[in-house]
Amino acid sequence: MDIFEKLLKHRGPIGEHSERAHGYFAFPKLEGEIGPRMKFRGREKIVWSLNNYLGLANHPEVRATDAKAAADFGLAAPMGARMMSGNTNYHEQLEKELSDYMGKEDTTLLNYGYQGIMSAIDAICNRRDVIVYDAECHASIIDGLRLHQGHRYVFKHNDIVDCEKQLNRAVELIKTTGGGILVVTEGVFGMAGDQGKLKEIAALKDKYEFRLLVDDAHGFGTMGKTGAGTGEEQGVQDKIDLLFNTFAKSGASIGAFMSGDKGIINYLRYNMRAQIFAKSIPLPLVIGHLKRVELMRTQPALKAKLWDNVNKLQRGLKEKGFNIGHTNSPVTPIYLQGDIPEATAMCLDLRENYNIFCSIVVYPVIPKGQIIYRLIPTAVHSDDDIAQTLKAFSETKQKLDRKEYKVAEIPMV
Amino acid sequence: MDIFEKLLKHRGPIGEHSERAHGYFAFPKLEGEIGPRMKFRGREKIVWSLNNYLGLANHPEVRATDAKAAADFGLAAPMGARMMSGNTNYHEQLEKELSDYMGKEDTTLLNYGYQGIMSAIDAICNRRDVIVYDAECHASIIDGLRLHQGHRYVFKHNDIVDCEKQLNRAVELIKTTGGGILVVTEGVFGMAGDQGKLKEIAALKDKYEFRLLVDDAHGFGTMGKTGAGTGEEQGVQDKIDLLFNTFAKSGASIGAFMSGDKGIINYLRYNMRAQIFAKSIPLPLVIGHLKRVELMRTQPALKAKLWDNVNKLQRGLKEKGFNIGHTNSPVTPIYLQGDIPEATAMCLDLRENYNIFCSIVVYPVIPKGQIIYRLIPTAVHSDDDIAQTLKAFSETKQKLDRKEYKVAEIPMV
Repeated sequence: MDIFEKLLKHRGPIGEHSERAHGYFAFPKLEGEIGPRMKFRGREKIVWSLNNYLGLANHPEVRATDAKAAADFGLAAPMGARMMSGNTNYHEQLEKELSDYMGKEDTTLLNYGYQGIMSAIDAICNRRDVIVYDAECHASIIDGLRLHQGHRYVFKHNDIVDCEKQLNRAVELIKTTGGGILVVTEGVFGMAGDQGKLKEIAALKDKYEFRLLVDDAHGFGTMGKTGAGTGEEQGVQDKIDLLFNTFAKSGASIGAFMSGDKGIINYLRYNMRAQIFAKSIPLPLVIGHLKRVELMRTQPALKAKLWDNVNKLQRGLKEKGFNIGHTNSPVTPIYLQGDIPEATAMCLDLRENYNIFCSIVVYPVIPKGQIIYRLIPTAVHSDDDIAQTLKAFSETKQKLDRKEYKVAEIPMV
Repeated sequence: MDIFEKLLKHRGPIGEHSERAHGYFAFPKLEGEIGPRMKFRGREKIVWSLNNYLGLANHPEVRATDAKAAADFGLAAPMGARMMSGNTNYHEQLEKELSDYMGKEDTTLLNYGYQGIMSAIDAICNRRDVIVYDAECHASIIDGLRLHQGHRYVFKHNDIVDCEKQLNRAVELIKTTGGGILVVTEGVFGMAGDQGKLKEIAALKDKYEFRLLVDDAHGFGTMGKTGAGTGEEQGVQDKIDLLFNTFAKSGASIGAFMSGDKGIINYLRYNMRAQIFAKSIPLPLVIGHLKRVELMRTQPALKAKLWDNVNKLQRGLKEKGFNIGHTNSPVTPIYLQGDIPEATAMCLDLRENYNIFCSIVVYPVIPKGQIIYRLIPTAVHSDDDIAQTLKAFSETKQKLDRKEYKVAEIPMV
């Protein structure tokens, strides 16, 4: 059969709705400066969809640095993979500063987080090794696991009893394979906002021999006393053997990095396929990262303001009777009950009549009948943004509960 | 066992040499404006390692556009995955212009080439499908194939008889699996510079039902009458079902794109994991790409000058008796015989005494006893650059032939 034919018939969970959703629910365009108020289809909205936690995207020093770096070097430099011709003093300086910030011996930059963590997992594990991982790990980790030719055992999300059970299975298996064990989890889970149980997993090192890889994409800059992440928050930064972070969230950029002991980081530097065979992070981005990291470390007021807003939003939602699950990070989910037409109509009402732009997740990503909104508070949201949003959710939830939401028609522009 | 222990013992083919090679043969730093003359350890070298084919990296209009775009928008915009909150009019405009340039109905941008082509292959093929591919496909394609759960059959590099043999095997297999066939090859192979046999493979469509994916990373902007690539060069652009290109070479940037028929491109847009679950290409890069594509299309003199230089360099090497293999693209390999100490000493002599900076490949990447230099001529190299380089290679080859190269010591800075 024609390989494209099946794809055009079964267009995927979101693709099936693309005619209706495109440009509104999927691939919407937010215009204007990155911040809590942006334009969507010509009208100002309060935006809760951007992982711009510390407000760095539009910070005047960041904007000035980005502009100067691009003017000084252009966006082409350096050309080539880091190992071949794409290395600079700035890349090395950033690695040093990140190591210092993370409290690790060494750091290697990754040109992109998704392929970076995939290739790291691929480089670390051979077919004799076993990977034990949390069921809710990010897609990039799952794709890394899919490259793994050995066994992998999944544990129920944040379930330490099950984690230990899977570790026991792994220990049994490596007796015959002669391999080792890598445990993979996240600092902050990006959908539900709950922290990974790093402390409890680290404690299992007393009983089992394994290495711990933590993806702290959402924790970098937001968690811990100095913003060094969820490991710092839980007092176990030193127990994390490989700490993965990305610049795509708090860092308000692209690219990522992996920190750990000198030997293993140098091994990764020379063996990650997506780094050896693909271009280095552009120099202006690296210079921009240096400024972002400097601000994270020297402006604690940014993180303090973020958490003020997180607390105001999450407290307000709880007071109004919303179920926000088990979040203990800035990521703020709102769990509601309703079918897809109701969810669509409510989201439209929020966006068109209350001017609230936020992300929504429905079936088939989560079970039928559930609706999850995900709000990302940032340091640059105002009290008024929060108050308007709480009011909007209260009113629309009442309409949802009264079954007032039927089929929704996206308005023409 | 400790999973890190084995890695520190077996540090990989290049990692094993890292103490000696770091900063010189691996992770060298080229400084100054991107071009044919850059500084390495403080001294000017003639550089042949950068895929800056058309000289766009440092073109005044590119530099001005890059600077203005970064000043206007900062390097953070847009935030989020393209599907969620990372879409802009500029992304859509670039897709339209690329479709027009490539002669395809539609185009979807990819945030990075490596993860982009991996996720595309992953999204297209299910376990019933068979992938038939050229043995010398790029690492990113191989990693895409590694995600594939169905069968894959490799054909000997550019061997059409073997390609047809593997197609026959695939046709037999899908009789039982009910899947389809995807053939994957490249426009220009990046190491040897030979073009993929696109015309011959396309002709096999008369006998077999398959879809053809071509990675034309090195052909984009350099091959074909208008620079539309190797498909245009061979007169079979319309036979390529999925045309993958990257901005990392001629485009002098990062990011990539996939072009094809509307239906399949829209399917990819909604189903590639590395695009749905990772951040969009930054807006200033997209604006920079628009300028680069405009120059590719409106300044044919750039490609003409590139080919002048390609012809001068390749003709010169052949006249001097060098074996440059079967290249029919700008990629210029030089094949020599020698062991690793000889190769190292010669490369050092070229770099230190002749001021020629170029990439070298030895065992274990290629068989023992072989040395491959890979030179990338660009539109901005001068006649003098070429003349000096030809002289340098002539003289060093004589020393190599006379067995004058022994163990090399990298000079201290």
